Amino acid sequence: MISLQDLAQVLGGTCVAGPDTQIQHVATLENATAHDLVFILEHKQLSRLKTITYAAAIVDTQIDTDTPHIIVKNPRKALAETLALLYPTQERAFTRHPMSAIDPTSQLPDTLAIGAFSSIGAQTQIGEKTWIAERVSIGINCVIGKNCLLYPGVTIYPHTQIGDNVILHAGTVVGSDGFGYVPGPNGALKMPHIGRVVIGNDVEIGANCTIDRGCLGDTQIGTGSKIDNLVHISHNTVIGAATMIAAQSGFVGSATVGNQVQIGGQVGVSRVTIGDRAIIAAKAGVTKDVPEGQVSSGFPAWNHRDEIQKEAFIRKLYKQHRSSKNA
Amino acid sequence: MISLQDLAQVLGGTCVAGPDTQIQHVATLENATAHDLVFILEHKQLSRLKTITYAAAIVDTQIDTDTPHIIVKNPRKALAETLALLYPTQERAFTRHPMSAIDPTSQLPDTLAIGAFSSIGAQTQIGEKTWIAERVSIGINCVIGKNCLLYPGVTIYPHTQIGDNVILHAGTVVGSDGFGYVPGPNGALKMPHIGRVVIGNDVEIGANCTIDRGCLGDTQIGTGSKIDNLVHISHNTVIGAATMIAAQSGFVGSATVGNQVQIGGQVGVSRVTIGDRAIIAAKAGVTKDVPEGQVSSGFPAWNHRDEIQKEAFIRKLYKQHRSSKNA
Amino acid sequence: MISLQDLAQVLGGTCVAGPDTQIQHVATLENATAHDLVFILEHKQLSRLKTITYAAAIVDTQIDTDTPHIIVKNPRKALAETLALLYPTQERAFTRHPMSAIDPTSQLPDTLAIGAFSSIGAQTQIGEKTWIAERVSIGINCVIGKNCLLYPGVTIYPHTQIGDNVILHAGTVVGSDGFGYVPGPNGALKMPHIGRVVIGNDVEIGANCTIDRGCLGDTQIGTGSKIDNLVHISHNTVIGAATMIAAQSGFVGSATVGNQVQIGGQVGVSRVTIGDRAIIAAKAGVTKDVPEGQVSSGFPAWNHRDEIQKEAFIRKLYKQHRSSKNA
Repeated sequence: MISLQDLAQVLGGTCVAGPDTQIQHVATLENATAHDLVFILEHKQLSRLKTITYAAAIVDTQIDTDTPHIIVKNPRKALAETLALLYPTQERAFTRHPMSAIDPTSQLPDTLAIGAFSSIGAQTQIGEKTWIAERVSIGINCVIGKNCLLYPGVTIYPHTQIGDNVILHAGTVVGSDGFGYVPGPNGALKMPHIGRVVIGNDVEIGANCTIDRGCLGDTQIGTGSKIDNLVHISHNTVIGAATMIAAQSGFVGSATVGNQVQIGGQVGVSRVTIGDRAIIAAKAGVTKDVPEGQVSSGFPAWNHRDEIQKEAFIRKLYKQHRSSKNA
Repeated sequence: MISLQDLAQVLGGTCVAGPDTQIQHVATLENATAHDLVFILEHKQLSRLKTITYAAAIVDTQIDTDTPHIIVKNPRKALAETLALLYPTQERAFTRHPMSAIDPTSQLPDTLAIGAFSSIGAQTQIGEKTWIAERVSIGINCVIGKNCLLYPGVTIYPHTQIGDNVILHAGTVVGSDGFGYVPGPNGALKMPHIGRVVIGNDVEIGANCTIDRGCLGDTQIGTGSKIDNLVHISHNTVIGAATMIAAQSGFVGSATVGNQVQIGGQVGVSRVTIGDRAIIAAKAGVTKDVPEGQVSSGFPAWNHRDEIQKEAFIRKLYKQHRSSKNA
Repeated sequence: MISLQDLAQVLGGTCVAGPDTQIQHVATLENATAHDLVFILEHKQLSRLKTITYAAAIVDTQIDTDTPHIIVKNPRKALAETLALLYPTQERAFTRHPMSAIDPTSQLPDTLAIGAFSSIGAQTQIGEKTWIAERVSIGINCVIGKNCLLYPGVTIYPHTQIGDNVILHAGTVVGSDGFGYVPGPNGALKMPHIGRVVIGNDVEIGANCTIDRGCLGDTQIGTGSKIDNLVHISHNTVIGAATMIAAQSGFVGSATVGNQVQIGGQVGVSRVTIGDRAIIAAKAGVTKDVPEGQVSSGFPAWNHRDEIQKEAFIRKLYKQHRSSKNA
């Protein structure tokens, strides 16, 4: 529970009216009641405030002089900050479940939570205040930083390196062998993979992703990068810092992706280099290097604007053809 | 073991010949022996009956007057009913494995099976005759209905709501955080997700799917909907009732999908509304609202017939160009 | 540690210079030090040897007469063999973790490793020297061969058949029910699946894949086939021998894929037959039978060369149109 005035201070905003309004819950515009705080994240939703009941609103423009509301520059950021304030993450007790399997040669701090049915391999080191849920398997010789969250069903293969504040969602696999074989007369010869996966600080990886280890070198995911669910990152792929990858995208071996790159869903990236701040639209297939900052789409991927206009042009051609046939 | 006559009665069909034929097993046309019941699911397979050995057949049209067979209206439905009759699901004992981790504040009926290495969180309620396999993790404050089947490796995050008769296949993750961040100078700020996943009755979800929780509101999957393997459903997506979603399809946040919708494999759906009974062909990318009943394909998705004819038209144009070049 | 001369013998190559050079580690060209062996896998990298420090090189052509190096016919094969020699797989103790759940009616050899939190169902048989990691669930009535590796989080549904030397990576699900329903007035009727999954010898399947069981017949994966991560193989699909399937591809029910087929990433295959040695390029959607040896791409998939040239032709048409508009 916080007063609107105090919340404005936390958010760095201006409380226009209703400073003493007490706020306990945040709700969607659809579900709000007279006790809830609501957020206008898109300007076109502003008019909906007249049609619903709510206690107070967070907006980026003044509504009037008497409705309780706070004006902030970035309502979406204010929402993230308000949710973190009003719905703090549950405190986790730093306990080790008796039904866990911890190798005596692992190096673990006192402030570590280990859930039921989780195992930690020989020589593995884990940092302070990391929380390992139920059913997490961590192999030998891994290093995992502090303040990490590993959700149920995560598997970490041996020799993996993970930084601080990393979140791995349920079912994600880190360090599986890359898909590498040498064709031969007696069938495919498996290429051994002695490289590692190295994950930087502040990385979040969604559920049921697969991150393969490198063959000789390492597969790398840079600091602050965020990866959605069901993403496949193959051996020796190098992802830069602060890069965002949407769900179900996949990377062929040895792709190099820069910093602050944005990759849409269901994208495929082959063995190319993608420059910093490039944007790859959903479902693209990237077969050539992408320069810094370029927006690409299509398969093979090229300039996004051209892809959009090409498809529109083709559909127009087809419709002319269809009309002439029917005429 | 059942006689053909009795089976005809169960199926609501007509036993034309061989009423006393005893049926114990069902086989494919490829593998059938003189003791097996076979099904003709497609008319063009009817002639194959002359070339194989079998005990009796289920068909939708009379074969002759002396071959043991049953005529039914819908052989596929008859197959489902016959398999359920002859191969009943193994009775499951309602036992709790000693190597499970059950919070004492959870509310569990006597008729509940809990497999080895499964855990149930505080305050979670589960209905009667639900079967929880090995290695299932259920978080705190969940509600799960009766007669559900949760296969090995399923993870249910806290606060999830699941109806009755729900089947979740192995490795599926329900309730992971949505992929939401607010860009900022110090990197992406994580958007907390306080919404839930709410799954209706009679839903089946395949293996290794990921269903993210909502941000403020709930991610919803309506009654009777069926979802294939490796499907990604992101935060605040709302799926209606009796909708079918094939493998490897994905939904961006806040998509709204109607009732009785059919979605093919490897489809991508962005933040749009898909009307009731719409059909989305495989590999489509849906970027605009789809009206009720419309059949769509392509990327960006539009009328399926036009997409098919457009591609044919383009290939024809290209072939003319190729011929003229070679001429 | 091995001398260059001895290594040449193992690899069937020619040691041109430096026979007594002792080799302990292999490194990438980027990371090599004066103690490392490096491999030139692509001819264009040969010139890089002048710019880096290394102990010895494996090449397919003579460098000079005094640099320690071995000439082999296939450096990639030599790399696989060298890695297997210098980095042997850790010996696994054939122990059974006390926190495992093994049905007393299962038939297990003494030389079997069973990790923590793994379970083996009734009547299941497993061969010698198979290694079952942590958190593996194997259902009843399965047969698993010898020398297999099952990584953490693997789920094997009942009645599955797996050959010798099979590797299943973490999180993979084998034997889940196929996506089959019969539409009806009271919702979709689930089609029972009584078929199995049958996996041949020497198969490797990546992480978080899903292999559905057959309805009546079996889903089959032939000897020596290799499957990458996040691949979906649906009910009654039959994959031949020595076939390679890249990540995130999916197969609709009853597809038949030949031997030595190569399938790229994010491919979708419907109910068709793909001939031996066919190649399907990434992201293709295969809707018709593919003859032996044909290279296909596009959606619907057709001749790869035509698909490439068609797309180039269309982009050229569009650019002409764009220029004329701007003129």
